[in-house]
Amino acid sequence: MNYRWFSTDIVIRPDDIDVNAHVHNSRYLDLVLAARYDQMARCYGMAMEAFLRLGFSWVNTKTYIEHKRELVMGDVAVVRTRVGEMYPKGVRVEFEILRQATGKLCADGWQEYTMISVQSGRAVVIPDEIRRIYSIQQ
Amino acid sequence: MNYRWFSTDIVIRPDDIDVNAHVHNSRYLDLVLAARYDQMARCYGMAMEAFLRLGFSWVNTKTYIEHKRELVMGDVAVVRTRVGEMYPKGVRVEFEILRQATGKLCADGWQEYTMISVQSGRAVVIPDEIRRIYSIQQ
Amino acid sequence: MNYRWFSTDIVIRPDDIDVNAHVHNSRYLDLVLAARYDQMARCYGMAMEAFLRLGFSWVNTKTYIEHKRELVMGDVAVVRTRVGEMYPKGVRVEFEILRQATGKLCADGWQEYTMISVQSGRAVVIPDEIRRIYSIQQ
Amino acid sequence: MNYRWFSTDIVIRPDDIDVNAHVHNSRYLDLVLAARYDQMARCYGMAMEAFLRLGFSWVNTKTYIEHKRELVMGDVAVVRTRVGEMYPKGVRVEFEILRQATGKLCADGWQEYTMISVQSGRAVVIPDEIRRIYSIQQ
Repeated sequence: MNYRWFSTDIVIRPDDIDVNAHVHNSRYLDLVLAARYDQMARCYGMAMEAFLRLGFSWVNTKTYIEHKRELVMGDVAVVRTRVGEMYPKGVRVEFEILRQATGKLCADGWQEYTMISVQSGRAVVIPDEIRRIYSIQQ
Repeated sequence: MNYRWFSTDIVIRPDDIDVNAHVHNSRYLDLVLAARYDQMARCYGMAMEAFLRLGFSWVNTKTYIEHKRELVMGDVAVVRTRVGEMYPKGVRVEFEILRQATGKLCADGWQEYTMISVQSGRAVVIPDEIRRIYSIQQ
Repeated sequence: MNYRWFSTDIVIRPDDIDVNAHVHNSRYLDLVLAARYDQMARCYGMAMEAFLRLGFSWVNTKTYIEHKRELVMGDVAVVRTRVGEMYPKGVRVEFEILRQATGKLCADGWQEYTMISVQSGRAVVIPDEIRRIYSIQQ
Repeated sequence: MNYRWFSTDIVIRPDDIDVNAHVHNSRYLDLVLAARYDQMARCYGMAMEAFLRLGFSWVNTKTYIEHKRELVMGDVAVVRTRVGEMYPKGVRVEFEILRQATGKLCADGWQEYTMISVQSGRAVVIPDEIRRIYSIQQ
C-alpha cells in the first residue's frame, strides 16, 4: 500500500523556542500532533471528535524522531504525514517536518497509535469503515 | 481576615526556559497553578479531585502578575499563595514567587477564581463547608 | 493618542488544550506574545530581531488578563493588540483575544514592557525613531 | 560496558496534563531532559553549564520512546537514565520513566546526542576527560 501524504503549515510561535534559540525538541511532536488533527478533519474527513462520538480514541504507543536541521523563530513548519501501515488494532503514521522557506527537511520519523474503546480503555480492531477512510492512496 | 500563606518548592525544568535564558513569562502562572494544586491537597486538605467529586470546579477569571527578577535554569522556585479575599461565588488568591537560593522576590500578583457547578457550568455560591476549609488564619 | 489596533490569526493546537478541554490559561499569554512578534514585523516594520540588532530588547514587567469565554480545540484565535500608552522607558500593550468563528471576545487585558539595553540589562529611554515607528494612529 | 543508572524524582504539574487527563505525550521528553540536567550536575559532577564553559554543547539527534502506562495528576515521576553507549562524537542515553507510587514502568526509550563545538556548530570528538566522567560503572 502506498498511502497519500498530506501537508499542514504551522507558524512557529515564540513559546516554541528554547534557550538554544530553536524550536524545543519536544515541540516537534506537538507540531506533528497539530498536523495530524488538521489532516484528520480536512483531508480524511473524519475529525478526532468524530472518532470520539463513535466511542473510539487513538493512543500513541511509540514515537521515533530524527532531528536533521533546526527550525527557528519566524519559520513556518510544513508538516507532512501519511499512514505508513495499518495493523488490525493500530496504525503507523510517518511524518516529515520541513522549513517552508527552504523546503529543507528538519526532522522526520514515525508514530504508532492504537485504537481504543473509550469505554473499556482496551485496544479494539479498527472497523472497516475507518480502515476505508484511512486508505486514501497516492 | 488574614488568611495563612502556604509554600511549595518547585524545581525549574529546562523546558521552562525560553530564548532569553530565563523562565518563560507564561510559565510563572503554571508555577502558581502547580503550587495551588499542591496546597489545596496538602495544606487545606481538599484536593482539586475532592471539589470535582462534589460537582464543583474553579475557573480562573482574572490574573495580575508583576515580574521583578528572573528565575533561571538550576533555580528552585518557592511559590507562596494565600486566600486574599473570599466572595460569595469566588475567591482571590494572592501569590509570591521567590528564588530559593536568595530568598528574593521574583514575581507576585493575584488571581481570581469563580466556583462553578460542573453540571451547569454556572457560578455557584461557595458552600459554607468549603468556605470554612479555606478560612485557615495566619 | 489613539494608536492603531492590529490583528493576527492563530490556529489553536492540541498541545494548547488542558484537562478542562479548553486552551490552558497560561497559553493565552503565549498567543498574545505570538501576535505581538508577528505584528512587530508585519505591521510596525520592526521585527524583534531588528531591536536586538540595535542592542535593545523588551522585558515584560506587568500583565493583566481577564478570561471571558473559553477557546477550544478547532478554534482560530484572533489576537488584536495595540500600543495603549508610551512611557519614557516603556510601553503598555493592550490586547483582545476573540474566537474567529463567532467574533466573540474570549479574553482581554494589557501588558507593560520596559525597553532595556541588552549590554547593560538596564532600562533605557526609548529612542525617538522607535517611538515614531510605534506611533501609527488609528 | 555497563554504565550506571541514575534517578530523579519529578512532581507532575497541572500544565503537564492534557485533554486526556494524563501527562501530554511530548512532555515525557521534557521529563527526560529535566532528569538528565539534574543528573549531569548531581551524579556526573559536570553540569550543562560546565560543558558550555568549555565551548561544548549536546545536540539531540534521535529519540525513541515507548508509552506503556500513563502518568496522571498527582503523580511523581521517577526518571532513570544512563549512558547506553559512547560513540566517538556522541552518546546514547537510555531512559525509563516510572510512577513512584507503584514502581510501574510508564515509558522507556533512548536518545542520541552529538557533542558539538559551540563556536563552529560542528560535531567534535568527545575529549577523554569527558569520556572518563561519563564512564561511571554499575
